[in-house]
Amino acid sequence: MAEAAVLAEVWRGPFMESVHTGHAVICDGSGQIVAAWGDPDAVVLPRSSSKMIQALPLVTSGAADAHGLTSEHLALACASHQGAPMHVERVNRWLRDLGLDDNALRCGPQVSRDTALKLDMIRAGESPCRVHNNCSGKHAGFLTLAQHLGAGSDYIDPDHPVQMACKDVFETATNEETPGFGIDGCSAPNFATTMHGMARAMGWFATAGQRSDGLSRAATRLTEAMYTHPELVAGEGRACTRLMRASKEPVALKTGAEGYFVAILPERGLGIAVKAADGATRAAECAIAALLVRLEVFEAAHPEVAAFLSPTIHNWDGLATGQIMPARGLLV
Amino acid sequence: MAEAAVLAEVWRGPFMESVHTGHAVICDGSGQIVAAWGDPDAVVLPRSSSKMIQALPLVTSGAADAHGLTSEHLALACASHQGAPMHVERVNRWLRDLGLDDNALRCGPQVSRDTALKLDMIRAGESPCRVHNNCSGKHAGFLTLAQHLGAGSDYIDPDHPVQMACKDVFETATNEETPGFGIDGCSAPNFATTMHGMARAMGWFATAGQRSDGLSRAATRLTEAMYTHPELVAGEGRACTRLMRASKEPVALKTGAEGYFVAILPERGLGIAVKAADGATRAAECAIAALLVRLEVFEAAHPEVAAFLSPTIHNWDGLATGQIMPARGLLV
Repeated sequence: MAEAAVLAEVWRGPFMESVHTGHAVICDGSGQIVAAWGDPDAVVLPRSSSKMIQALPLVTSGAADAHGLTSEHLALACASHQGAPMHVERVNRWLRDLGLDDNALRCGPQVSRDTALKLDMIRAGESPCRVHNNCSGKHAGFLTLAQHLGAGSDYIDPDHPVQMACKDVFETATNEETPGFGIDGCSAPNFATTMHGMARAMGWFATAGQRSDGLSRAATRLTEAMYTHPELVAGEGRACTRLMRASKEPVALKTGAEGYFVAILPERGLGIAVKAADGATRAAECAIAALLVRLEVFEAAHPEVAAFLSPTIHNWDGLATGQIMPARGLLV
Repeated sequence: MAEAAVLAEVWRGPFMESVHTGHAVICDGSGQIVAAWGDPDAVVLPRSSSKMIQALPLVTSGAADAHGLTSEHLALACASHQGAPMHVERVNRWLRDLGLDDNALRCGPQVSRDTALKLDMIRAGESPCRVHNNCSGKHAGFLTLAQHLGAGSDYIDPDHPVQMACKDVFETATNEETPGFGIDGCSAPNFATTMHGMARAMGWFATAGQRSDGLSRAATRLTEAMYTHPELVAGEGRACTRLMRASKEPVALKTGAEGYFVAILPERGLGIAVKAADGATRAAECAIAALLVRLEVFEAAHPEVAAFLSPTIHNWDGLATGQIMPARGLLV
């Protein structure tokens, strides 16, 4: 197994204080590796970076159309949103349309990461709900599919038809047999694949518009939903939203817990998977920004790109004390 | 330069999801390396793990005694406290005794990490003060020394007598010429040294009781203050406090930002320095716990030790989804 490669350096004054290693793979639509750093065969849980794969059965089953889901619903199904009012209100409306409420969600409650809403809820003495969980859109999608299939309410059980459908499309998109799953932060199964498998899946999404089968049409619809509604996929201030808005061309970006990040580049027919081996979000954000600068999808000088590519580190008094920088090998 | 060694693994279900590498050195009082992992020559900023060194001039100058400082003051001078009422009230009283207030502190304001106080302040619409900064005790010590020396108020200037005294004792304790400094989270200079240098300094502290010079007597006084008041060095729920309380013998423990951790073992005459190369606190906590289990200072089965040595990872719904585990080579 190849060693992890350096992805990002953390500097403080004249010293490299910390360093992040990991794996990154760029794949084309045929699954061929275009470029790779670290170990393409490393088996990793892609966590929330697999949400657009998990949303495929919602579309291919006909559930999305039967329930009149819009591109906003589909973006939320692929989202790790920050539980801002724009997300919470839409997911609550979606649940009402299904004849359900917060209790139907099987994700745990999570404090909103929208600062204003969080502070308002603290001042009002309100507890976070399940709908505030960053995965509540994915779970609303699971509930929609479960209802459409006439399946039971325990939609996070690995043997439930919803999760069996997720596993099936995961293996199709990655073109690998999954070695198994871990339980995600939202209690749903999260299937493992290699870095190559995940980049292959993103390359498959990126070239879906060139194919006419139902699964590929669903992939195109989900990709378009993501880059059409960047604010629903994450939220104001967050990497996916800011970087999708800053891109020179349509790209779908998705973060995952423990340092995962993926990109779908429909105009290039390329997919990217990044994993910071230590699980650091700051490293994954820096590395994905660097790879998209390398591919000339991003301008390094764009302030929103620079905010993740080479962010300044400030201390409690607002002084600039350091900087994160991508490994030079990612950029050129 | 030797590679970083594996310190800790992060597992989710049957998969190792993330892995942390870094450096660790155990030194005796003569500065000899007893055991090492990774690169003892790696140059690192020890961040808040150097606070007991930065507090030495406060004692050796006579400032501590002239101002009637107790062991509680000295523990706070070495602390990264969580801004709980017990910390804030004591530092505010210390400042009043100096004829000063919050405005004299040069650290920036930081939101209290004491949950009850933080929520109370949000509900009351109160902004965090500088005294809530985790370094406010260190800064109160700096102010005491500055006043004692009749020096100016800009005590964080690298050319100020306070910082020049800190640099001098830092080089004495590490027995290395420092290659320079970075600016810390609290705006004070933080001097760099090798992993060996920092472990040597901790070994020097651990054996200070065997020497009669003034600097060594100050080191003993600070070490004793730390393990006598574990709740002042960090706070309820935090690693330093919980692990010092769980120890079978007196030890002084101190975390630092970006994955640093040190231990002073007076009964063994040993010092330890740990750095997670990627800056992860969870890895540094796991590794220091493992090394202290190795030395039989901690019981692996003690629930407070296990909480850092092999913590269970829970998701938003409270389900156990994984576990952090130390590298086997640290334990045996």
